[in-house]
Amino acid sequence: MGIKELLIPKDTIFFDLFERQAEIVKEAAHQLITLTEDFTNVKEKRHAIEQLEHKGDQITHDIYEQLNRTFITPLDPEEISRLASTLDEVLDYIDGSAEKMFYYNIESTDSHMIELAKLIHMSTSEIESAVKGIRSIKDPHYIEERCIEVNRLENLADDVLAHAVTDLFKTTDAIKIIKLKDIYEHLEIATDNCEDVANTLSDIAIRHS
Amino acid sequence: MGIKELLIPKDTIFFDLFERQAEIVKEAAHQLITLTEDFTNVKEKRHAIEQLEHKGDQITHDIYEQLNRTFITPLDPEEISRLASTLDEVLDYIDGSAEKMFYYNIESTDSHMIELAKLIHMSTSEIESAVKGIRSIKDPHYIEERCIEVNRLENLADDVLAHAVTDLFKTTDAIKIIKLKDIYEHLEIATDNCEDVANTLSDIAIRHS
Amino acid sequence: MGIKELLIPKDTIFFDLFERQAEIVKEAAHQLITLTEDFTNVKEKRHAIEQLEHKGDQITHDIYEQLNRTFITPLDPEEISRLASTLDEVLDYIDGSAEKMFYYNIESTDSHMIELAKLIHMSTSEIESAVKGIRSIKDPHYIEERCIEVNRLENLADDVLAHAVTDLFKTTDAIKIIKLKDIYEHLEIATDNCEDVANTLSDIAIRHS
Repeated sequence: MGIKELLIPKDTIFFDLFERQAEIVKEAAHQLITLTEDFTNVKEKRHAIEQLEHKGDQITHDIYEQLNRTFITPLDPEEISRLASTLDEVLDYIDGSAEKMFYYNIESTDSHMIELAKLIHMSTSEIESAVKGIRSIKDPHYIEERCIEVNRLENLADDVLAHAVTDLFKTTDAIKIIKLKDIYEHLEIATDNCEDVANTLSDIAIRHS
Repeated sequence: MGIKELLIPKDTIFFDLFERQAEIVKEAAHQLITLTEDFTNVKEKRHAIEQLEHKGDQITHDIYEQLNRTFITPLDPEEISRLASTLDEVLDYIDGSAEKMFYYNIESTDSHMIELAKLIHMSTSEIESAVKGIRSIKDPHYIEERCIEVNRLENLADDVLAHAVTDLFKTTDAIKIIKLKDIYEHLEIATDNCEDVANTLSDIAIRHS
Repeated sequence: MGIKELLIPKDTIFFDLFERQAEIVKEAAHQLITLTEDFTNVKEKRHAIEQLEHKGDQITHDIYEQLNRTFITPLDPEEISRLASTLDEVLDYIDGSAEKMFYYNIESTDSHMIELAKLIHMSTSEIESAVKGIRSIKDPHYIEERCIEVNRLENLADDVLAHAVTDLFKTTDAIKIIKLKDIYEHLEIATDNCEDVANTLSDIAIRHS
């Protein structure tokens, strides 16, 4: 064992935490599909997503704590901080979308919301794979491909939003328009946030490959 | 006195400027409470906040000017630039909220707005303390604690926004909903921006401790 | 020719790509003026802007590809990544504004939209000049002045937005308010995004001068 191995601690803790965080984000996205596909027991389903959001917050907090304690980190401190905060943002918007569906007291969800929830879930699934890839960046192209797919999904979400809002303006119920437009847009921002995570992962892959 | 002390100028100018900027942001938040608690002389009170926003802009500009002139800086140029721009964003949203209250010609403010203004003020107060802490980072945990508190306040603001909007949808006046929802959301974004400042300060504390 | 010149390839490719990207953004802004000034053949004009958006996306993609392939880059990888993504955001919002004008099926554009489109175009023109300036940063002050001008234009756009929304609230047609407010705000965000590009360019100028 050389001096380098003795000095550098095995900071697998960060990778463990990021993988756990990415899993929680994906699970929240999965539960968002359940909520939009079967809009019953809304309060309970919304609460379950909120619980995941709290779990995610705890992990984000653990990552920052760890960063304060650790002298040598496997990624740059700014990279760790940026990855943790962008992942957290995705979770915030998944949770916020569920919250709006509950608080706005809407009657039902619709196909646009289901489609957006599915695109968010697919994006978080790609992100989870890419996060697993940064533990040992043997294949930056694998990460890059996951990120390109997240960007593609974000473009699809843009289109779904455009169609959803176009449909919405066919009604003359202004208050309904305000509520649903806000929910659609919130869901779409979750995919934008997935793109931010992807860009962060892509930058990490470029720098460390 | 060693060679190091001879070479590195005392760039206390940056810390002076940041402390001044943080004070102005807090003062603007304070005046926002005054405006929301006593919604009279709206034009004058709004104007006073706008004046603070201009003062803040001038300081942001001075920081960038200084950055152009200074070879050795106490923080990384990107850190200085990020701290200046995130602080500026908080001020922009405080000013923007006051502007909307004035331009939208609303009849009165309400308890939600007052609560949000108070949360913004508390956040800017924590930020001011944390900014003072970066002058000589003896205690990164002190800064970290201020930042955790800012995050907690941001979560509270999220809840206030949710309740405010839920209340709002009890009315059937769509135009009132559009106006007030916009103001509530604008106020809440100010607390998001406070979180961005806190994250920036937290990163600085981690890197320089 | 010294060893340094032998080792460092002439990575003019990045500057070429950024200049091309900045040109496309400016051209899209130009076509947005055309669309708002003469609101006929909306579908075709909107489609032309969308085509520019796709071209821009391709260049952004090329920049990332190049970053993956190139060992020594003329700017830091994060600077390249940030400049590409902020420029892309401006284009997204120009395209998104045109999309909303088309999808929302509005009857006509108005003087506020024209004014905002012109401010976006002026900003993208300043950005194009500043981008040309980073190829060989002999004059950081030239870049800095372009950036100050972009910030000034963004402040003007804020004022136009405030007046536009104030005017809008004089009507009692809630759905019209929702549509137009959204378009105005989207146009204004494009100028915010121009400011993000300017801040990125300013940071590059400071670091490399």
